[in-house]
Amino acid sequence: MASEIIEVEGHIIDSLILPKVMDKILAAGADYRVIEVDIGKTNADVSRARIEVTAADPDALLSLLDELQVHGANRVDVADAELVACDRDGILPAGFYSTTNLPTSVRIRGRLAEVEFPEMDCGLVYGQDGRLRAVPMHRARVGDLVVVGTEGVRVSPPERPRGHTPFEFMNSDVSSEKPKALLVGQVAARIRGAKAAGHKMLTVCGPAVIHTGAGPSVATLVREGWIDVLFAGNGFAAHDLESNVMGTSLGVSVSEGSAAEGGHSNHLRVINEIRRYGSIAAAVDAGYIDGGVMYECVKRGIPFVLGGSVRDDGPLPDVYANVVEAADAMRYLLPGVGVALMLASTLHAIATGNLMPAWVETFCVDINPAVVTKLADRGSHQALGIVTDVGLFASGLVEHLRLEPDVPVHARS
Amino acid sequence: MASEIIEVEGHIIDSLILPKVMDKILAAGADYRVIEVDIGKTNADVSRARIEVTAADPDALLSLLDELQVHGANRVDVADAELVACDRDGILPAGFYSTTNLPTSVRIRGRLAEVEFPEMDCGLVYGQDGRLRAVPMHRARVGDLVVVGTEGVRVSPPERPRGHTPFEFMNSDVSSEKPKALLVGQVAARIRGAKAAGHKMLTVCGPAVIHTGAGPSVATLVREGWIDVLFAGNGFAAHDLESNVMGTSLGVSVSEGSAAEGGHSNHLRVINEIRRYGSIAAAVDAGYIDGGVMYECVKRGIPFVLGGSVRDDGPLPDVYANVVEAADAMRYLLPGVGVALMLASTLHAIATGNLMPAWVETFCVDINPAVVTKLADRGSHQALGIVTDVGLFASGLVEHLRLEPDVPVHARS
Amino acid sequence: MASEIIEVEGHIIDSLILPKVMDKILAAGADYRVIEVDIGKTNADVSRARIEVTAADPDALLSLLDELQVHGANRVDVADAELVACDRDGILPAGFYSTTNLPTSVRIRGRLAEVEFPEMDCGLVYGQDGRLRAVPMHRARVGDLVVVGTEGVRVSPPERPRGHTPFEFMNSDVSSEKPKALLVGQVAARIRGAKAAGHKMLTVCGPAVIHTGAGPSVATLVREGWIDVLFAGNGFAAHDLESNVMGTSLGVSVSEGSAAEGGHSNHLRVINEIRRYGSIAAAVDAGYIDGGVMYECVKRGIPFVLGGSVRDDGPLPDVYANVVEAADAMRYLLPGVGVALMLASTLHAIATGNLMPAWVETFCVDINPAVVTKLADRGSHQALGIVTDVGLFASGLVEHLRLEPDVPVHARS
Amino acid sequence: MASEIIEVEGHIIDSLILPKVMDKILAAGADYRVIEVDIGKTNADVSRARIEVTAADPDALLSLLDELQVHGANRVDVADAELVACDRDGILPAGFYSTTNLPTSVRIRGRLAEVEFPEMDCGLVYGQDGRLRAVPMHRARVGDLVVVGTEGVRVSPPERPRGHTPFEFMNSDVSSEKPKALLVGQVAARIRGAKAAGHKMLTVCGPAVIHTGAGPSVATLVREGWIDVLFAGNGFAAHDLESNVMGTSLGVSVSEGSAAEGGHSNHLRVINEIRRYGSIAAAVDAGYIDGGVMYECVKRGIPFVLGGSVRDDGPLPDVYANVVEAADAMRYLLPGVGVALMLASTLHAIATGNLMPAWVETFCVDINPAVVTKLADRGSHQALGIVTDVGLFASGLVEHLRLEPDVPVHARS
Repeated sequence: MASEIIEVEGHIIDSLILPKVMDKILAAGADYRVIEVDIGKTNADVSRARIEVTAADPDALLSLLDELQVHGANRVDVADAELVACDRDGILPAGFYSTTNLPTSVRIRGRLAEVEFPEMDCGLVYGQDGRLRAVPMHRARVGDLVVVGTEGVRVSPPERPRGHTPFEFMNSDVSSEKPKALLVGQVAARIRGAKAAGHKMLTVCGPAVIHTGAGPSVATLVREGWIDVLFAGNGFAAHDLESNVMGTSLGVSVSEGSAAEGGHSNHLRVINEIRRYGSIAAAVDAGYIDGGVMYECVKRGIPFVLGGSVRDDGPLPDVYANVVEAADAMRYLLPGVGVALMLASTLHAIATGNLMPAWVETFCVDINPAVVTKLADRGSHQALGIVTDVGLFASGLVEHLRLEPDVPVHARS
Repeated sequence: MASEIIEVEGHIIDSLILPKVMDKILAAGADYRVIEVDIGKTNADVSRARIEVTAADPDALLSLLDELQVHGANRVDVADAELVACDRDGILPAGFYSTTNLPTSVRIRGRLAEVEFPEMDCGLVYGQDGRLRAVPMHRARVGDLVVVGTEGVRVSPPERPRGHTPFEFMNSDVSSEKPKALLVGQVAARIRGAKAAGHKMLTVCGPAVIHTGAGPSVATLVREGWIDVLFAGNGFAAHDLESNVMGTSLGVSVSEGSAAEGGHSNHLRVINEIRRYGSIAAAVDAGYIDGGVMYECVKRGIPFVLGGSVRDDGPLPDVYANVVEAADAMRYLLPGVGVALMLASTLHAIATGNLMPAWVETFCVDINPAVVTKLADRGSHQALGIVTDVGLFASGLVEHLRLEPDVPVHARS
Repeated sequence: MASEIIEVEGHIIDSLILPKVMDKILAAGADYRVIEVDIGKTNADVSRARIEVTAADPDALLSLLDELQVHGANRVDVADAELVACDRDGILPAGFYSTTNLPTSVRIRGRLAEVEFPEMDCGLVYGQDGRLRAVPMHRARVGDLVVVGTEGVRVSPPERPRGHTPFEFMNSDVSSEKPKALLVGQVAARIRGAKAAGHKMLTVCGPAVIHTGAGPSVATLVREGWIDVLFAGNGFAAHDLESNVMGTSLGVSVSEGSAAEGGHSNHLRVINEIRRYGSIAAAVDAGYIDGGVMYECVKRGIPFVLGGSVRDDGPLPDVYANVVEAADAMRYLLPGVGVALMLASTLHAIATGNLMPAWVETFCVDINPAVVTKLADRGSHQALGIVTDVGLFASGLVEHLRLEPDVPVHARS
Repeated sequence: MASEIIEVEGHIIDSLILPKVMDKILAAGADYRVIEVDIGKTNADVSRARIEVTAADPDALLSLLDELQVHGANRVDVADAELVACDRDGILPAGFYSTTNLPTSVRIRGRLAEVEFPEMDCGLVYGQDGRLRAVPMHRARVGDLVVVGTEGVRVSPPERPRGHTPFEFMNSDVSSEKPKALLVGQVAARIRGAKAAGHKMLTVCGPAVIHTGAGPSVATLVREGWIDVLFAGNGFAAHDLESNVMGTSLGVSVSEGSAAEGGHSNHLRVINEIRRYGSIAAAVDAGYIDGGVMYECVKRGIPFVLGGSVRDDGPLPDVYANVVEAADAMRYLLPGVGVALMLASTLHAIATGNLMPAWVETFCVDINPAVVTKLADRGSHQALGIVTDVGLFASGLVEHLRLEPDVPVHARS
């Protein structure tokens, strides 16, 4: 038998942290004893609990503590973290501390260092400059000092939005039977709030954004300064460009909804021409592209990352064929993002969710509840899934954002 | 081995009738020989084919011919139909001809009689007045003369909409990746056309119509004369009334989207009060109900049928607790209906589809593709499934129908 | 401002009761102050909390207390409940206490009376015999003494299964990405346990049970004594009988999976013949039906309720055309049921869930996650949703139940 | 106005080719006149039709002809194809003929050349050796002679499986309400047939194969010689390896179905270790991996391609980070494949479908009907979608394939 005392602090009751911790302990076949608990008297007060966890052996205890930390339960005993140097590029030391996307600090040589930009599933590298970074496996370099084990690591428990919100308890959020007109207005309000606070808005788009006719709405969001960063794949960009040049999306007329003759190869011809120009920006400059989401990004200087996938046709010259480089490019653009809108995207939305800190407020919109559930489960503790038609949602969002008098501006970062 | 010659006539190639007939013959392990085929030279011309069908034995042949007739393939040999009298109420003679919902005529005593209002899964009763009616099993009465076998029965093959339509080939229609804003406009145009031609519009509503915030839009469609008949269940009506009296739908605030306190019993209290008034109409007259879909129906004299189900709370006094009577009440209101709009309803939409002739143009709107596919597969050869958010669809439909200058009026029937 | 002190007791942390109560208070725009909290030291100890709730006015407070009681939060102050007599048949007094399906007791004239068989959405009628019953609205009779308001009513909070279970935290249970072979074994173990404890097993079946080839497995479960009560609709029974008489289900061959010739009317012909026999039992006795689920129920004397719906063909003579009577018949058979298996059924499964006390362990199996989520959200606090193929699930379940040596017997009740 | 005469030949009625052609012409706003039609007298005879197509102008006609050719309608007039040389690497000449995945031949300099291995969305490059190849855009090289326009190109219309099959008419195939036990046996029979004919079997796996417990079944299919080529992504391979080393899949115990402590980082640790070994094969050789799908592939020398994606953790050293190279690696392994099994995979299954000729018989198995529909719509005219639980399907498939006495052997290619 092996024991250790852990503590959790924050809104641990109504943010479900304490229940989850107890549940995890029992589910692991271990046991707990509550040593001390101090429940906040009011909604504004934080609560604290100290719990003794007992597991069958030290190994089981260790991996349980590891799991509990994901939920913000830290050891009371804070010793210095163990640092081990990488001995090969792209490989972390065995036993590396595997990050969450929550705010995290580590006691190193007697002092607390804060992780600069939390990202899940990374190692923690302590630099000679005293900075602590979440580093994905492939970017580890020989000699990097990496935190090993959970000793000395403290994470802050996630807080869910509190008070009277339209976004109800737990994940019953993901129902299709909600009044969407209301939700659109509430999402607009949150976006407006985040922008007003100086945060950037990231938008992640799947090809269905174009197929469902949401392209012009998203282009408007770029043109009018709401979208600061765009992530997508070859398909989204190709169909956006196709709809501009040919008036079709995957050969279906965007204005009439009927299949165009010869349309099945339209996107290929457009991709081929863009390859000839050398880049989307060059095609815009040459006047070949004169509207649409990608056009607005180029014109407004909005940065975008198009990540490749094995099913891509072409691909467009701007697409990162190397997916590891694509993810690195996405990482580069994330600091400063405070709100993320994921529209009809599975692959790129999940990829993005994996890279973002938990504090980014995320709205996942898709007509398929399975996709929305998958997205809301990952990536962010502040994710809200909305099961609705992306085409109708996007045009409603534009209307709502325009209703207010004050003109939004791009975030200064 | 047994053979028979059948013929099909109409747009048998592009309406897929001939391919389906050939497919059914082969799938049944039987064989065919094309005797004569006359393909229409142009899109406007009809085509004709005569095919000899050979099956293993007369029984297999008979049941195959029965199946083929569903697709409009009739025997060339037209003898008089056999008529057998019912010997017990509510039970058809063995071997009764089981109807489709296609236009059908029967040769009786040397003359062709047309089925007055085709309904699927019925028997055909030949009255002493020379009229031929589709009669559901439970309404058969002792002495009724019922058509037995397929001899003498001819059905007209279904035609699918032709030419340049937004509603593409086969059932790829049911995709969620379509520009819905377009579809809304096209549905509005079809409704306008049907109403202009003097047809009635039927609307079938599920409870999610209210949960998704579509209630006010549907109420507007009733108030402004678009909806002529309404079918629904206890749940839809109860939540419509609840949203009017309490401002909630199943306890969720319709204007704020958040759960109201004590809201879970709101619909029960409203049902209880309506039971006290004795009917929805009485509650409207007394001023207890002053808005919503049911209110508009009462005020405008729009007939409605609320069919009961085993999961009903209460139920409301207007609900038919006897489902056989409910279906009969629905049958009574169907003649004159030319277009049907099914909103977020599974049970009542399928029930309605079972009762309608194939010529009623039907639009099934639901966010769940499985429901839409199920509905589009049944009920009508002219059904179009639209996978989208009902709340956003309904408000768009109201906008589109209002756009046009001419004021719609209720169909005169 | 109005205040009241409430208390919750039980596994209020890890069963999420306290968090839910706090959440509901804040969501209602009210506020709380924790007066006293006593967290159980170990997993076996119960916890207790007293909380002062403050709302804007007495009405808001009252309806909030009403809502909180659904989650097991009772007023500390226990006065006698108010009783009001019904003045009309089928109508409860205004302000009636609307039941949950949790264990409930009421202080009446200074003594606690326990609700005999909790059912949600009912009124509580106090009989002259001192018994307290949950009575659906339509069965209230003039003079019945009905509990009004929440004063004096105490409910026990629901407990979720604790410890090391395959059924994880919250409703992530409903994922399709679980190893189903494992789940089948675990469901078998729970069924075995419930039967061994003398409980009955209820099974609710939809028509897809037959379409997916699960019919023989369910028939085996009846024949071998596992199923004690069966609820279904006309469609399930008709296709079960059709598959026995004709070898098809909705015209599709059950043994070959291909459409049979003439098959679309097979179920109609079988229904018509059963109507001639007068009942399924009569058709079994006459030898017309010699296998299948309904056959085994008749042979074994297993009671069943077939509830009607507006979409029914026929219907079969055993079907309750009156849905209120159908629900009453279902109520009659529920006492003694300890475990419920809902297979590919939406309508009848939801209807059943509405009638059952929260303590019945319920497994909902369907390939559509939306159905499973809907079912697991209602009916029972012990519901587990399993997204899988019903045909493959049922045959696995039979195998697992047969593996064990001891022969199960029908529960003695 | 511009006209041209086209012809179609084959089972053009029951394979729906003629109806589709007529439909496309009308949908494009063009018109047709049937010049000659010769319907095969029996099921074995082919049919032929010549149709004059008239469009508004030569451009519209040209793009319509282009579209019709996808369905096997060729111009009667066969002139030589136009060849244009590429002037830049990776870019096709404007107006390039965009391929289908149907058997295709082109008249070049008076002689017919057959496309060696049809792949959709490619250009056709005519080599100096007289061979004609489908070349994806990115592999075009300066000087390559590419077919431009549709002149001289003939494609063979697709044929769908004929006769008495379990796989019904059109895409109603994709229903979840089918008896899956039957389908498993029929899929087993088709696989057995394809292998007996010397074809290879390709399997494409998503991560849910492991999560649903299907891993050991797929490993068995490799070990026993059924699977000849494997395509997957980083996630599938990582969870297969994790389940072997740790006994978990994404941290969930594969044998118990419950979350393991500390399990969320299990796959990361395994990926990190495999990176240390340098490859999966090296880890197998070193004994670190001693079971599972990837292990069996290494041991048996079964080639696999792991294509990267932007959401990958790690990734594993065997993963192609460059997706264009991944697709090329997949192309390299496709010749000889006659049957493909796609298990719970969206991304890699669609990617594979894009690369395969239409003649490869394809079975797509997923619990989500939306995925199955998407896959069956693409990739192959012989695709069958099966909506079921992958875990239960795979174990059933192994049983069925083992039932037969003769031991299967790997295809000799």
